[in-house]
Amino acid sequence: MDDSVKKLAILGSTGSIGRQTLQVVRNLDGRFRVVGLAAGQNIELLSKQVAEFKPEFIYYQSKNHVPGHSHDRGSQLLSLEEIAAHPDVDIVVIATSGKTGLSATLAAVKAGKKVALANKEPLVMAGEIITREAKKSGAQLLPIDSEHSAIWQCLNGESQPPKRILLTASGGPFRGFSLKQLSEVTPQQALQHPSWQMGKKVTIDSATLMNKGLEIMEARWLFDVPLARIDVIIHPQSIIHSMVEFADGSFKAQMSYPDMRLPIQYALTWPERVNNPDLPKLDWDKIKALTFEPPDLKMFPCLELAMQAARTGGTSPAALCAADEVAVELFLKEAIKFPDIARLVEKVLQNHQTIFDPTLDDIINIDGWAREKALQFFKKSN
Amino acid sequence: MDDSVKKLAILGSTGSIGRQTLQVVRNLDGRFRVVGLAAGQNIELLSKQVAEFKPEFIYYQSKNHVPGHSHDRGSQLLSLEEIAAHPDVDIVVIATSGKTGLSATLAAVKAGKKVALANKEPLVMAGEIITREAKKSGAQLLPIDSEHSAIWQCLNGESQPPKRILLTASGGPFRGFSLKQLSEVTPQQALQHPSWQMGKKVTIDSATLMNKGLEIMEARWLFDVPLARIDVIIHPQSIIHSMVEFADGSFKAQMSYPDMRLPIQYALTWPERVNNPDLPKLDWDKIKALTFEPPDLKMFPCLELAMQAARTGGTSPAALCAADEVAVELFLKEAIKFPDIARLVEKVLQNHQTIFDPTLDDIINIDGWAREKALQFFKKSN
Repeated sequence: MDDSVKKLAILGSTGSIGRQTLQVVRNLDGRFRVVGLAAGQNIELLSKQVAEFKPEFIYYQSKNHVPGHSHDRGSQLLSLEEIAAHPDVDIVVIATSGKTGLSATLAAVKAGKKVALANKEPLVMAGEIITREAKKSGAQLLPIDSEHSAIWQCLNGESQPPKRILLTASGGPFRGFSLKQLSEVTPQQALQHPSWQMGKKVTIDSATLMNKGLEIMEARWLFDVPLARIDVIIHPQSIIHSMVEFADGSFKAQMSYPDMRLPIQYALTWPERVNNPDLPKLDWDKIKALTFEPPDLKMFPCLELAMQAARTGGTSPAALCAADEVAVELFLKEAIKFPDIARLVEKVLQNHQTIFDPTLDDIINIDGWAREKALQFFKKSN
Repeated sequence: MDDSVKKLAILGSTGSIGRQTLQVVRNLDGRFRVVGLAAGQNIELLSKQVAEFKPEFIYYQSKNHVPGHSHDRGSQLLSLEEIAAHPDVDIVVIATSGKTGLSATLAAVKAGKKVALANKEPLVMAGEIITREAKKSGAQLLPIDSEHSAIWQCLNGESQPPKRILLTASGGPFRGFSLKQLSEVTPQQALQHPSWQMGKKVTIDSATLMNKGLEIMEARWLFDVPLARIDVIIHPQSIIHSMVEFADGSFKAQMSYPDMRLPIQYALTWPERVNNPDLPKLDWDKIKALTFEPPDLKMFPCLELAMQAARTGGTSPAALCAADEVAVELFLKEAIKFPDIARLVEKVLQNHQTIFDPTLDDIINIDGWAREKALQFFKKSN
């Protein structure tokens, strides 16, 4: 294999980011070789991906059989962590959802890989541990989230740390809704994001603004910026993906139509930029106005809860993430209403005894505790 | 003197950019020593500046005497070119107006200085010669124009040339005016720029959009980008100072309130950024919307004339600049009407025989010819 061809493993290859990563790889013909694919339950799609990309290693959670491994010239079945740390892998794309990617991210980081992170929870739950290990091993954390990709692009070539990071948020489908209106929204409505095509969990988190709270924590660890210097602004058009203010008061912003393939590609080809005819190009004749407004923390208390958990630190963000995963799942099953997501998360946080400077085991234990607690609160209220 | 203290010469120190440069220098106490000051007729202000900054070298056009030179420990009287090329000068700020700065810019460039350019005409008239000489000598051209500073900041750390440059323009005070309304505007109205505080010549050029045409040419030479890849967009709020599109379709924009002290300071302190409490900081709670629209080339034909001159090349941009200087002066004296500025420039260009690959002498000769021709056309029409 040509040395310049980078060997890619995609954890979460059948999800939204995983599928888009494979689209990008197809367009960058010859630059990448997909050596690892890992999925959860979507065996049908994984089988197709395996047939097309012929990876050396695969992983799947489902008990159904995936054709194409353990055969002659087929793929070897490994764990997520084994794929993430395998010597034959250069870049690991963490495109899993929720806390699934945590231990694989840590494995990739300890192995000194380039780690392209789309999954927020690993950094939110264990940012201190992951960034400490990355410093030791020389691993590079490459953001795939559009906001963090924007910040990363704006920081390019700047020798000083940012004075302030301004994360933009679309505001989700329920921007401007009353509490009464919010009580009546259905999962179907919440899954209709006005500007982004994403997985279910992150789409609901966008509707509650929890997603923006998680992004604050992600930004803190990725760019080593104190929480007090990270703000959120609502920008419904989702054209500016975030902004950075510098010491002299100058701002830089990165812009594009909302399409995850751009930040995915940037993370893969960085520091180079590559033309991709598939990506929609900004048409300034059609962009009449970019608008801005402050976030409504009263209507969307998840953002405030996340900022509190971030300021508390320790295991608080892990408890927040776990409670949110349970709450979002309950909402998607129509077991709770939209405003109950924040209420459930708040109850769990109120009952959480924060462990400071936690080990990974502490974090995983709190994750389990918070999930159980969230379910208990849900059952009590029914 | 401390070796880290940079020695600054400001050509045009009594004009708008010159005065603001001195404000910036005062705020950056200890980083710069003003060793050269040059002015035209404003002897009163120059005398005050000389008393405050005690430069080694001064120049002035006026025949009135400036106190403080030729005395014991006083300033030496030199020509603009001698100051620009003096071994004791590190950075030359070209803050002159019109073609005045041309030969001093060339002298500074040939001497391998850092040349902070606020004056557009040198690059517009002789961009090919200046950039060729800069390559030979290792001189660095540092843009002070807010648009070019924005582009420069956005290109920071990017290894590939821009796919496209999008120059923003406020549209000036007469955006949306009819031809009838334009025929009636007074110099006083034209000097009321909606967002920028600038010198008279550049303020009128902003009202006609000639300024944006000159900036296209400036951008072409500063960033070595073909004309076909430079576009103009009207953005009345003057918050985004320009944008760059990259190979992957990603855009970066630089933003701040319109205040020339920011690009001046960036050029002086680059690659460092320095806090300046005097500079207004963007308040996103007050910025409701950033809007965009295409420029109206029919109502503002100067932009189209400048683009034509740019495409023609050779001595055409010099002829354009000279005719524009005369026309703006006539308009300021209320000798011609606002739409006559474009008409006069167009007539001169129609009569101009372009010399391709011109020498500096060719350019200076055409400058003289075009001024004379513009005055002839003016006199004929009266």
